[in-house]
Amino acid sequence: MLAKTPPPPYYAVIFSSIRTEVDSGYGETADRMVELAHEQPGFLGVESARNEVGVTVSYWKDLESIKNWKANTEHLAAQQSGIKNWYAQYVTRIAKVERDYSFLKE
Amino acid sequence: MLAKTPPPPYYAVIFSSIRTEVDSGYGETADRMVELAHEQPGFLGVESARNEVGVTVSYWKDLESIKNWKANTEHLAAQQSGIKNWYAQYVTRIAKVERDYSFLKE
Repeated sequence: MLAKTPPPPYYAVIFSSIRTEVDSGYGETADRMVELAHEQPGFLGVESARNEVGVTVSYWKDLESIKNWKANTEHLAAQQSGIKNWYAQYVTRIAKVERDYSFLKE
Repeated sequence: MLAKTPPPPYYAVIFSSIRTEVDSGYGETADRMVELAHEQPGFLGVESARNEVGVTVSYWKDLESIKNWKANTEHLAAQQSGIKNWYAQYVTRIAKVERDYSFLKE
C-alpha cells in the first residue's frame, strides 16, 4: 500500500541500502522498526522495497519528528546492529517534499 | 548500486507505485527510461526496487532538470502507457534533499 500523506510540505527520509549476507534477526527488526515508526509523533507513512538495492522512504511532519525518531532508544539499537551486521552500505537522505501528484486507476 | 550524489542541496523524485497485472512491454520500457534518464542534463543517479510496492528515487541537480525530464517526448509516451496499462496507482513526490549521510563497511 502506498503512504497516504497530507498536502506538502512535509519531509521524506530516503534510506537506500545494500545488505550483507548476515541475517541474525534482520527481518524481525525491520518489521519491528516499521511498527515502532508508526507510533512516533509526526510519522506520516512509509514505502519500502528490496531487490539488489533496498529503498525505504518514510514520511514525517517535520525535521523535529525525524530527529526524535533517529534518537529513539530501540531504533538506535537497530541502527547499531545495522552497521555491525546487516548493511554493506547505506545512504540516508533527508528531503523536504515540495510537491506531489498521484494517479489511481478507476 | 547506490547512487553517488554530490553534497546537498539537490532534488529527489520519489516515484512509488503499485502495478497492474498487465505486462505489455513494461520491463523493456522501465529499463529504457533508466537509460534515457542517465542521458538527461542534471541527472545525478537512481535507486529502485519493487516487491508489493515499487519505489524508484531519481536524483537531479535542480527543478529545471526535473521539469525537462518530465516533458521528454519518449518519457511522456512511457508515462501515458503507465497510466493506460501498467500502474494501478502511483504517487510522485518532488523533494529537496537538504542533508545526507552514509555508511560503507570496511
